[in-house]
Amino acid sequence: MSNIKHKIIFQPHNREILVEDGENLIRAAMEAGVHINASCGGEGVCGKCRVILEQGQVEGGTEKLSTEDKEKGYILACKSKVKSNIVVRIPVESNVDASVLNIATSPRHTAKIKEFKLESIKDQGLLIPPVVKRYLELPAPTAQDNLADVTRLLNFLKIQHDEHRLVVDLDVIRQIPDILREGDFKVTATIIRPVREDGKNQITLIEPGNTTNRNFAIAMDIGTTTIYGELLDLNTGEVLSSYGDFNGQISYGEDVISRIIFAEKNGGLEILQKKVVETINHVIERIIKKATINKSEIDKIDKSDASISENNKANNRSSINNGSGIKKGEISTITLAGNSTMTQLLLGINPRYIRRAPYVPASILYPPFKASEIGLDLGRHTIALLYPGVSSYVGGDIVAGVMGSGLYQSDKLTLFMDIGTNAEIVIGNKDWMACTACSAGPAFEGGGITFGMRASKGAIEDFSIDPITFEPMIMTKGNVRPKGICGSGLINIVALLFEHGVINSRGKFNQELKTDRIRQRDGIWEYVLVWQNATQIDRDITISEPDIDNLIRAKGAMYSGAMTLLEEVGMHINDIEQIILAGGFGSYVDLEKAMIIGLLPEIDPEKVIYLGNGSLLGAKMSSYTNLFRRNVGEVIKMMTNFELAETPSYMDHYVSALFLPHTELNYFPRLKARMEARKPKTIQEIAVD
Amino acid sequence: MSNIKHKIIFQPHNREILVEDGENLIRAAMEAGVHINASCGGEGVCGKCRVILEQGQVEGGTEKLSTEDKEKGYILACKSKVKSNIVVRIPVESNVDASVLNIATSPRHTAKIKEFKLESIKDQGLLIPPVVKRYLELPAPTAQDNLADVTRLLNFLKIQHDEHRLVVDLDVIRQIPDILREGDFKVTATIIRPVREDGKNQITLIEPGNTTNRNFAIAMDIGTTTIYGELLDLNTGEVLSSYGDFNGQISYGEDVISRIIFAEKNGGLEILQKKVVETINHVIERIIKKATINKSEIDKIDKSDASISENNKANNRSSINNGSGIKKGEISTITLAGNSTMTQLLLGINPRYIRRAPYVPASILYPPFKASEIGLDLGRHTIALLYPGVSSYVGGDIVAGVMGSGLYQSDKLTLFMDIGTNAEIVIGNKDWMACTACSAGPAFEGGGITFGMRASKGAIEDFSIDPITFEPMIMTKGNVRPKGICGSGLINIVALLFEHGVINSRGKFNQELKTDRIRQRDGIWEYVLVWQNATQIDRDITISEPDIDNLIRAKGAMYSGAMTLLEEVGMHINDIEQIILAGGFGSYVDLEKAMIIGLLPEIDPEKVIYLGNGSLLGAKMSSYTNLFRRNVGEVIKMMTNFELAETPSYMDHYVSALFLPHTELNYFPRLKARMEARKPKTIQEIAVD
Repeated sequence: MSNIKHKIIFQPHNREILVEDGENLIRAAMEAGVHINASCGGEGVCGKCRVILEQGQVEGGTEKLSTEDKEKGYILACKSKVKSNIVVRIPVESNVDASVLNIATSPRHTAKIKEFKLESIKDQGLLIPPVVKRYLELPAPTAQDNLADVTRLLNFLKIQHDEHRLVVDLDVIRQIPDILREGDFKVTATIIRPVREDGKNQITLIEPGNTTNRNFAIAMDIGTTTIYGELLDLNTGEVLSSYGDFNGQISYGEDVISRIIFAEKNGGLEILQKKVVETINHVIERIIKKATINKSEIDKIDKSDASISENNKANNRSSINNGSGIKKGEISTITLAGNSTMTQLLLGINPRYIRRAPYVPASILYPPFKASEIGLDLGRHTIALLYPGVSSYVGGDIVAGVMGSGLYQSDKLTLFMDIGTNAEIVIGNKDWMACTACSAGPAFEGGGITFGMRASKGAIEDFSIDPITFEPMIMTKGNVRPKGICGSGLINIVALLFEHGVINSRGKFNQELKTDRIRQRDGIWEYVLVWQNATQIDRDITISEPDIDNLIRAKGAMYSGAMTLLEEVGMHINDIEQIILAGGFGSYVDLEKAMIIGLLPEIDPEKVIYLGNGSLLGAKMSSYTNLFRRNVGEVIKMMTNFELAETPSYMDHYVSALFLPHTELNYFPRLKARMEARKPKTIQEIAVD
Repeated sequence: MSNIKHKIIFQPHNREILVEDGENLIRAAMEAGVHINASCGGEGVCGKCRVILEQGQVEGGTEKLSTEDKEKGYILACKSKVKSNIVVRIPVESNVDASVLNIATSPRHTAKIKEFKLESIKDQGLLIPPVVKRYLELPAPTAQDNLADVTRLLNFLKIQHDEHRLVVDLDVIRQIPDILREGDFKVTATIIRPVREDGKNQITLIEPGNTTNRNFAIAMDIGTTTIYGELLDLNTGEVLSSYGDFNGQISYGEDVISRIIFAEKNGGLEILQKKVVETINHVIERIIKKATINKSEIDKIDKSDASISENNKANNRSSINNGSGIKKGEISTITLAGNSTMTQLLLGINPRYIRRAPYVPASILYPPFKASEIGLDLGRHTIALLYPGVSSYVGGDIVAGVMGSGLYQSDKLTLFMDIGTNAEIVIGNKDWMACTACSAGPAFEGGGITFGMRASKGAIEDFSIDPITFEPMIMTKGNVRPKGICGSGLINIVALLFEHGVINSRGKFNQELKTDRIRQRDGIWEYVLVWQNATQIDRDITISEPDIDNLIRAKGAMYSGAMTLLEEVGMHINDIEQIILAGGFGSYVDLEKAMIIGLLPEIDPEKVIYLGNGSLLGAKMSSYTNLFRRNVGEVIKMMTNFELAETPSYMDHYVSALFLPHTELNYFPRLKARMEARKPKTIQEIAVD
């Protein structure tokens, strides 16, 4: 991607923003907190996002305009790509003061993204994977020295590599005699480290010759919905490829509870186990394929570059050699992280007691095992390592996130949230941690919402509203006509409807506002986001009071979960110094909006970290450094689990959280200030509630 | 068996012997060193063993006699059972002096038999099997205490039983949730101890309820020829049953070398692995069945005995309960000992390098593994423990013998021998051990001998010779007409032929002796042991010079092996303080005869111990006490292996040993004294050789 930045000045607000070359103008406006009426999601059909280009140039934006409009200098913001510094004027249809706009649409806040920093791991000398390869040149046996093959191997691993406490299982012993001789007694041993320092180092593979430069691992997140894998080069630390796919179990239930119910049916567990393994195997196949293709391309570049020095060529070749033509048999380990249900289903362990009070998982720690044992299509020697969990609803994915985010080493009081149907919350720092899970319901994933949908193409994800006309500005995933509303879109919509007084703190519409977008149908009040003709569907897309209520319950469950945990440990929500948002959904949440609805406590957005797929990150970190595996045992001991249903204060907190943003507006000082600056009427409403 | 003893006085020798009630009279004579002509092996058809019963009574012995003989007081010794103190007169056909007879047939020496002393193990507090069962009453999980099932289990194993360092594998974890609830949280955990004290204790099974009184083990000797198993009750230490069967691999070769050759053929290894597993499974089935039958019989006795006290009844029932209806799933461990080839074939490890210089085994130590992994028909949880070996030809069977015999704890310089086609020798004490194996050839098992056969019914096993007439006294296994000569019979025959000057120290017949039993056929000199009409076959049974030569080579290989080992450690054969004879064959060897031919060094027979099946004994001891498993690692480190072919002095020792008893008669002082007391001619012969 180009690094050229362009400055956009939006008039009459006089708001500036720097954007990448080629940025979509309507997205830039959204980013800048500038409202432009738009309801087709960015496809350019509604024609409402006409703006006047006063200076500079854009690409596109004029195709669907009349000659008259073109002559007046109009462009369609949603179809315009910014190619220079520009000045754009929004045709304000009513006499709106720019300061009102300023309040109305707060700029979008994106949090810091926690990135995996390989160099920092390397610099700290922590690129010490749980699995190492050791090359050995053994003296061939003679009449005077005819030790058993295994004894010879172990002796020289000790002498040449200072390897101790080694064990070898039968499978490997069976291969050793022939492989030693095939390799003329020059062989490579793959050794997997124990979790505990006083454990055994297990030899999992013996290969003829020197294969130490080919030591690969897979990190994988086993999500209820999606499975993501990464292929790692343990010598360089490089991520060679990654791939994600839907969990093949999805057709047997969308959430963990329905999976458990299916698993309890006759043969159900076997089916679910097989399905997730199929998906994992598919992901494995794809990441291996992708890594090979990537490296072939490098190969081409290498060949075409005649000026490259011999030395560099050699270096490149060695790097290519590492990545290209990776065989499944060269994968030394696969580290998997998933929630407790996914973990048990993967291992074929009946999850029925996870679903029933008192919610007991089979185990929180699992021993390393052979990946092939559960049907994973990897070498017979490939060892699978599973992230331990804490409880039935705080599983290995969360622990991986806690590890991967560094929370377990942080001095700051941190709120870690993984938002989804089952939302997990961890609060603590390097000295202590409390965790819990709350059933938020499917609202964040579009479930239980009239026009709810997953965050796929056509889902409304960005929204703003004109404070005077109450006309919306709508962006969809993929800039196509809207089909529905995804979770992050829902948060954005409700936040702005609330902040603009379209709904009150109970989520009820202000029926006195003069706009045909607010209406009652079959006794239910709703706001029309998109009129039918601008949608992909056969109806108007709306958001209704029951939809908003569902969202309020979902966010209320999460916020009150965090409140409860804090209270249990004698702290308060205002003590939180840092928020870490994990999970795919977390990455899409607009922080300011999430704080407006009271999903997240109000905190400086600079102190929020988007972790992304914390489960995958943790799995990757564990693949790179065994210290992680060693630490994780201590970490899960530190993580005190609370069952909210068994914590008496939870219900009180929950009821208090069933407001926008909360009964106690003082917890949200910035929002309170903005609301106090708004027209008295709305503030009065809030005061009454 | 009755404990009544009877005294027999043999006249004219005036030799006394105490025998059990019902002892066969001709066996008693053999034992006492009294010669009675007899050639039908004890079947009573040759009628040559007529003796005069001067006092007392016998049972039988007169059926096949003429009325005349009966009136004279004759009985057939071979058909007479001693029922009181008796005086018997041998009708000496020639004018033989009793003192000559005394020299001629030395009394039979039976060595001490090493018995398994459970009480001593118990008394020393060593009945600490490698596998224990722990009964637990766990609190059921509640909302306030919803630890993972595995965590709960481990915590309470620690609290209630002080069990630490526990690990559980996936197989067991899968079962835990349902079993905990099936048993209403009252369960029994089976735990296998590590070899090293700092290792992990592995939970192999969880059962509902209290099953601690049902903890069984199998000890098994995997011999090249036979497989013996014993079923053990680990609570009482009792051996519940035992059974032996021929190794199913036998049809693919009689000795380890031919098995290895077969294993190298395409699919050969798989066939041999399958065959030995089939035999083991058959033995397992039989010992379990036998144990159940035994206990049912006790059950009957219990029921029929109305006078038994309630208390005793209960005790008996609990004992019956232990043994009866044992299921394969109740076998916690199986401990196996076999030579290195048998071990590798059992595990499916290519044994080709065992057969080829420099004779390298795959491994000497094998990790515990699931018995089902190699096809053993036991519970999925049953752990197989394999005895480690030392080298390609000093295997786990020998190490088990060294352990079982207590050699590794002995102060005495001990010669341990396991005599067979491959004879293994260990010399040492608790501080050091040297070991080797020599290829003795099949002579000890009847191979390479014209009329050689295995030690089965009809095999000549006992022999004496009339020093004047050179008529033989022959006893067969099962007291039936002779079919051939087994290994121990061969030793006895050659020893007495030599001591009576029928053959010289080179094993050549004295052609001048006046007896038609010594003859030349097809240029080969031989001695007729049994004329055709007294045999089961269609020919005279003879022993020829080539037969004797084969035996001399076999015994020479063993003796010189021991000499070589001793020389390598700077000691001499006369330093030996104790001999332990292991193996089925060892138990049948007549010590004095073995010393006459120079198979064993001459030593006080009191200092010889018959170990019997040392491999099985070692396996059993390991099953009962884990200290054995812990010690064995140190023991094999102590055992220095010598390859005779690579030890230059071996050939010299071997050549010197190709005489009866040896070039150096001074190593055999008792024999030398007896020979010097004999007629000058024979002594001269020896002096010349």
